[in-house]
Amino acid sequence: MQKLWYGGNFKVGVLGGGQLGRMLIQEAVNYNVQIHCLDPDAKAPCSEIAHSFKVGALTDFETVYQFGQDKDVITVEIENVNVDALEKLEIEGKKVFPQPSVLRIVQDKGLQKQFYLENEIPTADFRLIDSIHEMERNSDFFPFFQKLRKGGYDGKGVAAIKSEKDIKNAFHEPSVLEKLVDFQKEISVIISRNEAGEVSIFPVVECVFSEELNLVELLFSPANISLEIEKNAKEIATKIIQKLNMVGLLAIELFLTKSGDLLVNEIAPRPHNSGHHTIECNHTSQYEQHLRSILNLPLGSTKAIQKGVMINLLGEPNYIGEARYEGIEEIMKFPGVKVHLYGKSITKPHRKMGHITVVSEDLQVALTLAEQVKQMIQVKA
Amino acid sequence: MQKLWYGGNFKVGVLGGGQLGRMLIQEAVNYNVQIHCLDPDAKAPCSEIAHSFKVGALTDFETVYQFGQDKDVITVEIENVNVDALEKLEIEGKKVFPQPSVLRIVQDKGLQKQFYLENEIPTADFRLIDSIHEMERNSDFFPFFQKLRKGGYDGKGVAAIKSEKDIKNAFHEPSVLEKLVDFQKEISVIISRNEAGEVSIFPVVECVFSEELNLVELLFSPANISLEIEKNAKEIATKIIQKLNMVGLLAIELFLTKSGDLLVNEIAPRPHNSGHHTIECNHTSQYEQHLRSILNLPLGSTKAIQKGVMINLLGEPNYIGEARYEGIEEIMKFPGVKVHLYGKSITKPHRKMGHITVVSEDLQVALTLAEQVKQMIQVKA
Repeated sequence: MQKLWYGGNFKVGVLGGGQLGRMLIQEAVNYNVQIHCLDPDAKAPCSEIAHSFKVGALTDFETVYQFGQDKDVITVEIENVNVDALEKLEIEGKKVFPQPSVLRIVQDKGLQKQFYLENEIPTADFRLIDSIHEMERNSDFFPFFQKLRKGGYDGKGVAAIKSEKDIKNAFHEPSVLEKLVDFQKEISVIISRNEAGEVSIFPVVECVFSEELNLVELLFSPANISLEIEKNAKEIATKIIQKLNMVGLLAIELFLTKSGDLLVNEIAPRPHNSGHHTIECNHTSQYEQHLRSILNLPLGSTKAIQKGVMINLLGEPNYIGEARYEGIEEIMKFPGVKVHLYGKSITKPHRKMGHITVVSEDLQVALTLAEQVKQMIQVKA
Repeated sequence: MQKLWYGGNFKVGVLGGGQLGRMLIQEAVNYNVQIHCLDPDAKAPCSEIAHSFKVGALTDFETVYQFGQDKDVITVEIENVNVDALEKLEIEGKKVFPQPSVLRIVQDKGLQKQFYLENEIPTADFRLIDSIHEMERNSDFFPFFQKLRKGGYDGKGVAAIKSEKDIKNAFHEPSVLEKLVDFQKEISVIISRNEAGEVSIFPVVECVFSEELNLVELLFSPANISLEIEKNAKEIATKIIQKLNMVGLLAIELFLTKSGDLLVNEIAPRPHNSGHHTIECNHTSQYEQHLRSILNLPLGSTKAIQKGVMINLLGEPNYIGEARYEGIEEIMKFPGVKVHLYGKSITKPHRKMGHITVVSEDLQVALTLAEQVKQMIQVKA
């Protein structure tokens, strides 16, 4: 007899136990699905709330392979995991979503770029290099970003190379050189697909980037873009998830250039920072949708019920230690302000400690309130 | 140094580990507050997801007293608990919300009635009796309901005594005889109060009762009542929570009589079946509001962002065993239909296995869809 997903004994294994897994668990409770996590950090956000929590290296073959043995579905909340182990599990008949083939492409920015090229998906011009010694012969390509093919994360592993004199800051490892894009804004599209091939897309999100922190400062939905650009973005997203033949949730970050073109920047095959607001703003949240996708359930409606702004709650610079959320009780007084803490006891500079969603029927009202809230709350030690 | 509520080590003890506790835990994750449960059933809905789960009798002095020792705040998700133990904990300096004094009144329908009388809170006429022998001398009071002063729950402990010939069905124990109310509808008001004395009220809910099952069949919000009645209901609710001097969430069920009067039926000092829809429909859910109340945080906005209908997902009659949710994947396709399963593996006739919230901007649309959904889903074994 087939195991029923709601039977209480259905086991989803999640590689990673961070905040994305934590919010997935909150939704999984409604489905009566067990969430088991693997993470190297014994104090990761899921550690206290997962059905079981195993401490171990996500990049270790044996650890990942053994973790997957008794799970009914295996998924990820971070890309940097051992794909060989997942592939072996898949060959042995386990359901692994996103599929290992997708993770291989996503883990390597070079393969990502080649995938876009082969499938005629618009992306910034690029070149691949194996070492820093190839840098000089690419001086005709200035200005560009050098991005490590593997292991970059949250702005790490990226160097801006505008001219010869920046080469001293360059990385030595295999990299993508990506032509600097003169963009007007960055947007994000979250799409999902189940095994039956059903596809569903959330309303487009606009990201406001802090150049200083090299992190998303706030994002809002719906994005302030034309219907044509929205349609174009959704077509690109659909093409990507279908060409990848992927099952699960996929976040696609795109640049909207000053000339009105869309270029794919990065993809992440999992719930994403740019989808947190869907918890409050949409019929179905990105976390519930990811669950539906990997359990091969009908996808939920992504219709927005209200407009939303999301602010990452980051550790202030110069503070390391037990987190104190200055101003938190003040901002909780505002209608439409929802606080999500990730359960990280120690704050560090720019560490993602939580997020705040600000909702309203009127996007401008939400944006104004979000700016005010952002000034009022600080994570210190 | 005062322990911070968000510090990760703040312990809320909950007497009861059912679905109300389960939904409280889902919200508590955002606050990074630990929820510890005590329940006699090792397989209760909170058993797998609480920070810790202790099996024990809620009515046993020593069990409750010991459970409370290391908690920072103690609350309930069911009324039938040992109040003496809670009172001792309160005297010893523990925060217990709702307060034991409130629980004493709520546990005894006779004391509840006297409380209403003393405080000029409208309620159906009543008499108190100590045993069945006093029944006959109250024949001038027919027709009435006999309600056990203690231990009644979900329609149990209630007998309709319309004439002498019904006395054979009467209970022997101390009871309230409550004059039959000729009501047009039943409504529910959920109110909350924190230690600072701040009070907040949710929009009024209308309950549609199934006489056959003696259970709420569906409820919707906002209630279809006049502004005057809404104002009146909220004034009654405010008076009750203030006269009780209560901290926490309080649900108040009222009859709206055919002549347009409001009469308090029952109160429950905890999250309530009639507030499930607030998860999707309001800025702040009843669960988050209860947490805010007992943690003495500013209360959240109760503004409705959409209209909602809630259907209890009850075990079909004649089925006992491993639950199967027939039609569940079909109803999940509808926009605005949200499923909450409570993690009970065994279904029994009329057992509350979960609930479904149906939301829309238009209440009539939600009601029509809810009726359709109700026909499509059945809990069998």
